[in-house]
Amino acid sequence: MQSLRDILNRIEAGQTSPAEALAASAARIAEREPAIQAFASRPDTLLPGTGPLAGIACGVKDIIDTADLPTGMGSAIYQDWRPKADAPIVMALKAAGATVAGKTHTTAFAFLDPAPTHNPHDQTASPGGSSAGSAAAVAAGMIPLALGTQTGGSVIRPAAYCGVAAIKPSYALMPTVGVKPFSWSLDTLGLMAARADDVGLALAAITKRPELDAPAVSLSGLRIGIDHQIYAGAAEPASEAALQRFADLATAAGAILVPHEGPSALAEAYQAHGPLQDYEATQALAWEYAHHRDALPPKLRAYLDMARATTPAQYDEARRVSRRGRDAARAFFREVDVVVSYAAPGEAPDTLGSTGDSRFNRLWTLLGVPCVTVPLMRGPRGLPASIQIIAAFGRDDHVIAVAKGLEKLVETHA
Amino acid sequence: MQSLRDILNRIEAGQTSPAEALAASAARIAEREPAIQAFASRPDTLLPGTGPLAGIACGVKDIIDTADLPTGMGSAIYQDWRPKADAPIVMALKAAGATVAGKTHTTAFAFLDPAPTHNPHDQTASPGGSSAGSAAAVAAGMIPLALGTQTGGSVIRPAAYCGVAAIKPSYALMPTVGVKPFSWSLDTLGLMAARADDVGLALAAITKRPELDAPAVSLSGLRIGIDHQIYAGAAEPASEAALQRFADLATAAGAILVPHEGPSALAEAYQAHGPLQDYEATQALAWEYAHHRDALPPKLRAYLDMARATTPAQYDEARRVSRRGRDAARAFFREVDVVVSYAAPGEAPDTLGSTGDSRFNRLWTLLGVPCVTVPLMRGPRGLPASIQIIAAFGRDDHVIAVAKGLEKLVETHA
Repeated sequence: MQSLRDILNRIEAGQTSPAEALAASAARIAEREPAIQAFASRPDTLLPGTGPLAGIACGVKDIIDTADLPTGMGSAIYQDWRPKADAPIVMALKAAGATVAGKTHTTAFAFLDPAPTHNPHDQTASPGGSSAGSAAAVAAGMIPLALGTQTGGSVIRPAAYCGVAAIKPSYALMPTVGVKPFSWSLDTLGLMAARADDVGLALAAITKRPELDAPAVSLSGLRIGIDHQIYAGAAEPASEAALQRFADLATAAGAILVPHEGPSALAEAYQAHGPLQDYEATQALAWEYAHHRDALPPKLRAYLDMARATTPAQYDEARRVSRRGRDAARAFFREVDVVVSYAAPGEAPDTLGSTGDSRFNRLWTLLGVPCVTVPLMRGPRGLPASIQIIAAFGRDDHVIAVAKGLEKLVETHA
Repeated sequence: MQSLRDILNRIEAGQTSPAEALAASAARIAEREPAIQAFASRPDTLLPGTGPLAGIACGVKDIIDTADLPTGMGSAIYQDWRPKADAPIVMALKAAGATVAGKTHTTAFAFLDPAPTHNPHDQTASPGGSSAGSAAAVAAGMIPLALGTQTGGSVIRPAAYCGVAAIKPSYALMPTVGVKPFSWSLDTLGLMAARADDVGLALAAITKRPELDAPAVSLSGLRIGIDHQIYAGAAEPASEAALQRFADLATAAGAILVPHEGPSALAEAYQAHGPLQDYEATQALAWEYAHHRDALPPKLRAYLDMARATTPAQYDEARRVSRRGRDAARAFFREVDVVVSYAAPGEAPDTLGSTGDSRFNRLWTLLGVPCVTVPLMRGPRGLPASIQIIAAFGRDDHVIAVAKGLEKLVETHA
């Protein structure tokens, strides 16, 4: 993989230039893209920008509006669609000096019907979804940075399946204006890169919040809640092993691990994700459903056929339960520094027909709290397996710092 | 004005048909539009839909996406722009049977530079903004219903200036997907109609929440907080007179009026509206500012020149203050049933060069609480002057019921 920090260090040291760094990304895309199929569209040339991320080629998930590249939403309904304007997050990327390397494949409207993308670790395995192209492009070393979005688990899960680092920041830290909505209470923009260190650097530059490029903290003395999310069902052995590996590393480093079941308000909030998303998705995709139902892929079509039965009363109750869950989260993050849980149920599905399962991600998306995943180990099938680190709302700096601390441990013990 | 309830009653009684009702709206548009200039674009014909609002011609503010009419944002930058899809709120309107009568003039990107619309009560006076065309079209009797949006006071203020009823519902009651954002924490869709009774009927039909078509409640025994919003400066005599007129009517009806200063958290929240909007508007309009700054109208251009200096720290502080304000509002709405305050500083400005001032609306928009204004009286210049009724978040049914109670008193004492 290409580390964004390495590239910027080499530019600063005069060992390469932004234009050369972009040319290296372009060469790697030319080499790997035929097998991986990460991109829906690409510009003819990659021109360097001006700013802290000059020389960084960034993938942009194809539900994010761009004025000079089509925005296809992963659907024939939007084939060759050209929005008027760049989404604010694309403007922020460019303002930081990054270069859009292309639009990355998404599942249709960021739901569950697979994108054409392959997992770089095993081309018969799923890259996950819905931000499939973004995760695969970073994992294949084609680009050092990519934008994804998460409504259930669409940033953390594909990152874990493809073995890259990623952050789903606090809700609305990056504005979702100009991003095709699925469920506006849940939709969250995220970043993928080779390492947590790269993710923090990029997030700081894009949001102009330098504190997010946080130095690594030692895990020694940290109170870490280990959460098996039992209300979400059992994890597979690969993810159990990853959580155990984390526990071993953290214990050896002097962290204080505490079992974290979470209050019942969290299990209830987990259940609220469904009706919340169902009610909002029905409205967000009302035009597509009314005018192009037959052109929707089967999983999304069946989902919307079901979701439209959700009543305002069910939605209002889901919002109340969500609010109580957020209050409960504020309380328990006073007792632990971070929570650690599975990033996904296991290794990537051994099929291109499924994007996997977001059940260990949904609660945190609904709570709006920041989550980071870092590549941790390999599972029994040789594919990446990982955990996610979760902090209180607004403590993106802290979750990045802890993830960087873990990253150092992993690299020391590799 | 055309009352939506009257039209539907006459259709139900067989005295007219949906097609005839739409033809009557079209005839009235043909008659009044040359003088009022409420519409940016209109369809060739008005075809009746199917549903509870069949026969109702509705204006749609021109920052709301429509697939079959241009969406011009009040700006040459978006001239003839055709979005791909109808916004969910437009789909909801159509699903309820209403017919889009046209896109109504908005100030550019819903800011302060005036639209070309005239106030039907005095063609040299402002109709207010930013939902200028929507308010004027309803006031001129061209259409019985219109959609607007409010980020500061852009629904309640033009409604008050034009003498129509309106609701700015609880935040996100109507989804803002497909509505050009200005400040996503504040942007709220609202409705305008002849009477509060019409507003409640339409809101219930569009949201499929029948309880919002709430019966009028008597003001007798209601605890009503009278709020002069002193932190927002003094009102003009016309608005003072309107608030006094309300107090007289309510007292005579047996309401319990209590002075309402509000906790200091509210005055602080009022001040937070500025930095919150500044930071978000800078991002929401990043593409327009970077690529078309010279094509922006002068007030918006100067505003964005200023607003871009807002720092993430100022924004975060504004969000914290807003959260405290919402908590404080929850507490004081346990002590009063509703709050009543000025709908605007006074009568409509006696110029087409200003859209007036949103200072008495901003706090409630930021709090996300529902506000209803009803035509109350005339000021010294013969133009409408009114108040707004405000209830707790989520109590849209209650604020509609109280507004209808007031409406009955006004009509009895007229």
